[in-house]
Amino acid sequence: MKKLINRVEAVVDEATEGLGLAHPDLVRVHAEPRYVARADAPVQGKVALISGGGSGHEPLHGGYVGRGMLDAACPGEVFTSPVPEQMVEAAKAVHGGAGVLFIVKNYTGDVMNFELAAELLQAEGIDVRSVLVADDVAVENSLYTAGRRGVGGTVFVEKIAGAAAEAGASLDEVERIARKVSDNVRSMGMALTSCTVPAKGSPTFELGEDEMEIGIGIHGEPGRERMKLRPADEITEMLAGPVIEDLGLKGGEQVIAMVNGMGGTPLMELYIVYRKLAAILREKGITVARNLVGNYITSLEMQGCSITLLRADDELLRLWDAPVHTPALRWGA
Amino acid sequence: MKKLINRVEAVVDEATEGLGLAHPDLVRVHAEPRYVARADAPVQGKVALISGGGSGHEPLHGGYVGRGMLDAACPGEVFTSPVPEQMVEAAKAVHGGAGVLFIVKNYTGDVMNFELAAELLQAEGIDVRSVLVADDVAVENSLYTAGRRGVGGTVFVEKIAGAAAEAGASLDEVERIARKVSDNVRSMGMALTSCTVPAKGSPTFELGEDEMEIGIGIHGEPGRERMKLRPADEITEMLAGPVIEDLGLKGGEQVIAMVNGMGGTPLMELYIVYRKLAAILREKGITVARNLVGNYITSLEMQGCSITLLRADDELLRLWDAPVHTPALRWGA
Repeated sequence: MKKLINRVEAVVDEATEGLGLAHPDLVRVHAEPRYVARADAPVQGKVALISGGGSGHEPLHGGYVGRGMLDAACPGEVFTSPVPEQMVEAAKAVHGGAGVLFIVKNYTGDVMNFELAAELLQAEGIDVRSVLVADDVAVENSLYTAGRRGVGGTVFVEKIAGAAAEAGASLDEVERIARKVSDNVRSMGMALTSCTVPAKGSPTFELGEDEMEIGIGIHGEPGRERMKLRPADEITEMLAGPVIEDLGLKGGEQVIAMVNGMGGTPLMELYIVYRKLAAILREKGITVARNLVGNYITSLEMQGCSITLLRADDELLRLWDAPVHTPALRWGA
Repeated sequence: MKKLINRVEAVVDEATEGLGLAHPDLVRVHAEPRYVARADAPVQGKVALISGGGSGHEPLHGGYVGRGMLDAACPGEVFTSPVPEQMVEAAKAVHGGAGVLFIVKNYTGDVMNFELAAELLQAEGIDVRSVLVADDVAVENSLYTAGRRGVGGTVFVEKIAGAAAEAGASLDEVERIARKVSDNVRSMGMALTSCTVPAKGSPTFELGEDEMEIGIGIHGEPGRERMKLRPADEITEMLAGPVIEDLGLKGGEQVIAMVNGMGGTPLMELYIVYRKLAAILREKGITVARNLVGNYITSLEMQGCSITLLRADDELLRLWDAPVHTPALRWGA
């Protein structure tokens, strides 16, 4: 195993500490329990957005803490759910009296631990709601998940609900917006290579020298199909097709599109994928209103990519365009 | 070779096309000869900044075209210098009557082809100056280079000279600023794995399962030393030490620091490196005034990192903080 790490037990603590050292104007890191909070939290009267999950998907979630996005992120160990205490203490530290919204990717451990945290907080009189993200069209049920997995759509939920909260929307309203995004976003991914979890020290799965896996999960969980490597344009069609179909996108509609790298993919290759995605959508009369191309939700050093599409309307575009200033996403500020 | 590409001959063209499709508000792509121009170029009365070099280092340089940074980038084939015609046509397309500054990384082919382009443009009455970036402290002379190689410092030269040009500085003044940055910036890198040039199809070099290379170049050129893998903290010391020493940094000074991924490195690992770099600098009484952590100048899918430090003063910090809006670097806009 080749990694820029010190000790496998310290990987998440040290990376989180590094995030805090690099961005003291945006975030502060709490060590025990571990969470990343917005530097100026609590913001009085503002709905607090909290997410979290296993580490190894950076910049998700810690890189999205800041103005106009998350108030706190709770990083578990690599590919391991955070414990309820993390969410409870993070929520107490950042809530500003207007309630808390949990944004939860649909993995069994995450769902259970966020639920437990919500119950504990409600018992203390803090109003907590949860929105589940389950945007991966590749498979129903899989390792770690009942139902669909939560993947790239999470970035969209965090950005757009974050903008609503920043603008002073009520908990009801922020929850409505988050659900609207979650309902209208779909993703699918693929891998050329495996990732290696530090604590395990060997690749999560094996792929032949000429093989790829379509529909892979962000922890390397099995996807739809293992097959021979194909050209990027064919791969793009295999990912975009099911996403467009599942969303029921039609000509005349507009989307926010993301071509996301899994962590080890050169940016050049992501732009080759974007080129084809743009052509596919153009041919169907679907307008790409906004886009992201880069590493936004990763799987350690895995090579591969995912495509996420969000059906957009004026409300969602206005919130998307609102200023955001976090370690990993920044505009208008 | 596992890559998200179609045909090896089309890699750079298709990636550049994808960049243009993703960011039509910022850049437009010219196909023959190939260059990426700022969407609103030429900006009348503004000094035009042009850079370029072999592809495979994305987001450098095309990702830095836009407001407050480059007016044009000329991408060669992967790890291959652009030809003079690219710079000549790009310069004619984007110059706004106030002269042109070439920002050239110190590789023999780049230096030669930018020089030839400058001569051709001067013959047509366009005032062209060139600033060389040669910030890699790892080795003197190497494959492709006489003198030091130009690496991460290029990002700093492009950003800061770009801000000066955007503010309306004269060609003399933009050249002075670019040289000041180039004179005060140093870098060093390392690799855990090789990259694979598409046209070659096999890894550029071989490293054993427990080996790393310290002082590697951004094309996989040999560095200072091949050695057994060490913990991230030791690696950070091996990179930061020579950079700090060569710059002659002393307590009380301030720097802009970059921890850069080579393309295949998880962000989590870059933050582990940043954590140690921050500790090293703090111990010496050197203040990190600003920082970047991420993939800014890469070597395809190589795993590894580099550290760049720029000695900063009020003038450079003011220009660093000025708004920038490009595909890969954005703030204040």
